[in-house]
Amino acid sequence: MATPRRTRRGRRPGTSDTREAIAEAARRCFAEVGYDRASIRVVADQAGVDPALVMHFFGSKQKLFVSVMSLPFEPEDVLPALVTGRSSQAGARLARFIVGVLEQPQPRTVFTGMVRSAAAEPEVADLVRDVVSSRMIGAIATGLAVADAPLRASLVASQIIGVIMARYVIRIEPLASLTPDALVEALSPNLQRYLTGPLPVVPGPEPAHEAGAL
Amino acid sequence: MATPRRTRRGRRPGTSDTREAIAEAARRCFAEVGYDRASIRVVADQAGVDPALVMHFFGSKQKLFVSVMSLPFEPEDVLPALVTGRSSQAGARLARFIVGVLEQPQPRTVFTGMVRSAAAEPEVADLVRDVVSSRMIGAIATGLAVADAPLRASLVASQIIGVIMARYVIRIEPLASLTPDALVEALSPNLQRYLTGPLPVVPGPEPAHEAGAL
Repeated sequence: MATPRRTRRGRRPGTSDTREAIAEAARRCFAEVGYDRASIRVVADQAGVDPALVMHFFGSKQKLFVSVMSLPFEPEDVLPALVTGRSSQAGARLARFIVGVLEQPQPRTVFTGMVRSAAAEPEVADLVRDVVSSRMIGAIATGLAVADAPLRASLVASQIIGVIMARYVIRIEPLASLTPDALVEALSPNLQRYLTGPLPVVPGPEPAHEAGAL
Repeated sequence: MATPRRTRRGRRPGTSDTREAIAEAARRCFAEVGYDRASIRVVADQAGVDPALVMHFFGSKQKLFVSVMSLPFEPEDVLPALVTGRSSQAGARLARFIVGVLEQPQPRTVFTGMVRSAAAEPEVADLVRDVVSSRMIGAIATGLAVADAPLRASLVASQIIGVIMARYVIRIEPLASLTPDALVEALSPNLQRYLTGPLPVVPGPEPAHEAGAL
């Protein structure tokens, strides 16, 4: 792999390839060893470039993380349609989409990297919370269009984060070796309940006195 | 706090108090900063003892982790009775027990410490997987006493690990500020489905041709 010298603002052939090679190496490092142990030096080594070039392109480890951990899809474009209308198929559609994303190597490294890094460092947990809350949960809540949509979406997030940890990070069996189709089938009714089933009534501006039926 | 000097095998008053003070400091460190950043030195500082004393009692950081991250209950004594007989109340009983444990500060630090540290370091993920698989999942499977009990128990584990991450580590709202009672109500039917509802048939020694009804 080429090891271009540090450039000064001017564009030249190969710059975007080099940036992408660094981003790809960083994505892999964060996913494999977590935020704390992923160093600029190791990322540079794996990309075959000088560490100074990583700093040139990204500025700091935290900025590198935020930059490369961008979501492999636009939540606002995809998620509302999956859950809209409180359809009885919403859980199955969402499960199929999420498992489909997680079963592809590169998108999976983004999500495992986000979850592992959130567990390692409070500042990164803040970043991940913002992404999950404002984008993922916001998009699901938009599709649901009900008063308790944020609670529903955050419960969905808890199950998906749990699958990422249990299946892909800790690798608990037999969940870890379940086929993707069986995983979709296992998850669908549970996501469906979070999306459209009865939930506890959580006090809002007006105190609620009735609990949702179980 | 007292800073006893290193002892040579002999017991003397205060030794078990000191050991417990170190264990308590270590539990807090692992939960708050994760395995990677928790150092013997910081643990010793927080316990008010010399780092050599930590090594004297525990031998290494990894042994310290395994020792202090012991479960706050005996899974084999508690879990089978909660889920036995495939009762329609098994999900609610299990949710109430788990949320009850997680809402107490010290047991919570054990579980958040385990999950955070599993995310940080592969060797620790192996330890956590062993505890979760052989003890937690084993105990739930014993109570269920059905052929697909390990799959059911590992799905339960995915939801519980997801709640630990989403509510207590990443702190995703509104899940993070849900009352314990509302959390139990939100989780119970989903745990119930994993424990007793229809699941995909996973091929065992004999190939399965029918999928579980959804």
